[in-house]
Amino acid sequence: MTVEDRLAALEATVVHLQDQLDVLRVVASYAPSIDGGMKGAGLFWAEDCVYDSDNDDPLRGRAAIEALAERIRGLEVGIGHNVSFPVAVVDGDRAIVTGESNTFVKVDDQYVVHRVSANRWELEKVDGRWLVTSRINRLLDGTDEARALLRRGAGSGVGQD
Amino acid sequence: MTVEDRLAALEATVVHLQDQLDVLRVVASYAPSIDGGMKGAGLFWAEDCVYDSDNDDPLRGRAAIEALAERIRGLEVGIGHNVSFPVAVVDGDRAIVTGESNTFVKVDDQYVVHRVSANRWELEKVDGRWLVTSRINRLLDGTDEARALLRRGAGSGVGQD
Amino acid sequence: MTVEDRLAALEATVVHLQDQLDVLRVVASYAPSIDGGMKGAGLFWAEDCVYDSDNDDPLRGRAAIEALAERIRGLEVGIGHNVSFPVAVVDGDRAIVTGESNTFVKVDDQYVVHRVSANRWELEKVDGRWLVTSRINRLLDGTDEARALLRRGAGSGVGQD
Repeated sequence: MTVEDRLAALEATVVHLQDQLDVLRVVASYAPSIDGGMKGAGLFWAEDCVYDSDNDDPLRGRAAIEALAERIRGLEVGIGHNVSFPVAVVDGDRAIVTGESNTFVKVDDQYVVHRVSANRWELEKVDGRWLVTSRINRLLDGTDEARALLRRGAGSGVGQD
Repeated sequence: MTVEDRLAALEATVVHLQDQLDVLRVVASYAPSIDGGMKGAGLFWAEDCVYDSDNDDPLRGRAAIEALAERIRGLEVGIGHNVSFPVAVVDGDRAIVTGESNTFVKVDDQYVVHRVSANRWELEKVDGRWLVTSRINRLLDGTDEARALLRRGAGSGVGQD
Repeated sequence: MTVEDRLAALEATVVHLQDQLDVLRVVASYAPSIDGGMKGAGLFWAEDCVYDSDNDDPLRGRAAIEALAERIRGLEVGIGHNVSFPVAVVDGDRAIVTGESNTFVKVDDQYVVHRVSANRWELEKVDGRWLVTSRINRLLDGTDEARALLRRGAGSGVGQD
């Protein structure tokens, strides 16, 4: 290969590596931004984002995410999210991240495991920044809907979808 | 350094970075592929893989991994794996990944922490794809066997082994 | 851009990517080095490190970290740390890593969730190796101190601090 070809190949690969780390960091920001009650918690999300959790009506838009963070900030109870190290698959300017998460809630001086769920995060790179456009969260309760989210995401890493 | 030397150094480093992310993604795929009951759950494993968990006889080969995923898919109980962000050490075409994991199981409308264990994953790069050749999983129950797995893996990152 | 400019840009980006993975690996080493009772558990920390946990007086220096690992190694009870995938922000030779963690402890044949807390890790690159200079760990118990750690760290990834 010519120097030019090698440089171009390196540049493309390096962008892809950076994208993977950036995507993982945006998803990793969810738990501390929400548990921390961060005012700008919506900055990791696209303007027209949708967060669909089986508990509730979907949250739509950054303001809804920030209202969630503000609500957590006002709670007197101890809450912590835990995100299992997820599978991130980046394809150009889109990415899918899949994995389990759970919440711990302090009840009477003892932490209990409140929810254990499956997650599918979809992200887009907009003006050079990765943003969450969609998150689907489903309780791992023995029914197939949550399981289907997980196997679809794991499969996308090996060309099964 | 000449342009040629700098290109060659960059190419080697970029392969190493990509390997680290690929290795982490393969290990991250375990939980969603199993919790999701994915038919191709064995695709992350080498043909002659061994998964040695202290509960049972070791699982051997891809079909045994896929039978595990299928068994999970048939359960009516809610189950979720959690993988603590692990230490990945890549050395050429081999990698070792070390860290804690646990399972949550839903019992009578409450999730309980079923197992907390130490893991040592060994991977090989075969025809450009990273595959798990061996996983050892030992319960963190106060005995030394699980602890030894963890300190060996942590030590390999700083040249202690 | 000239070949020289493109090479220089690639070299800088590749160092930054490597730094992110190295920083994450050092933080990931905490749990297995401590749960494993590793003799060299202090090697991931700077000589003059401070580990400030709300339980106790701060630990100062590598020997204090290694004494903690040794103490764990002597316990007959099962203990496992879990580190939620954290937010790592690298700026030159300094890095900040933020996220939740928890411990599981085996009590009467059942694992319980002992602590759920917020973490702020500060690292420095010294002679080419990343080392933890400071860790602050605060219980997520509904008070604001732990929450403030989390939102500060999440915010640093989007220019809020």
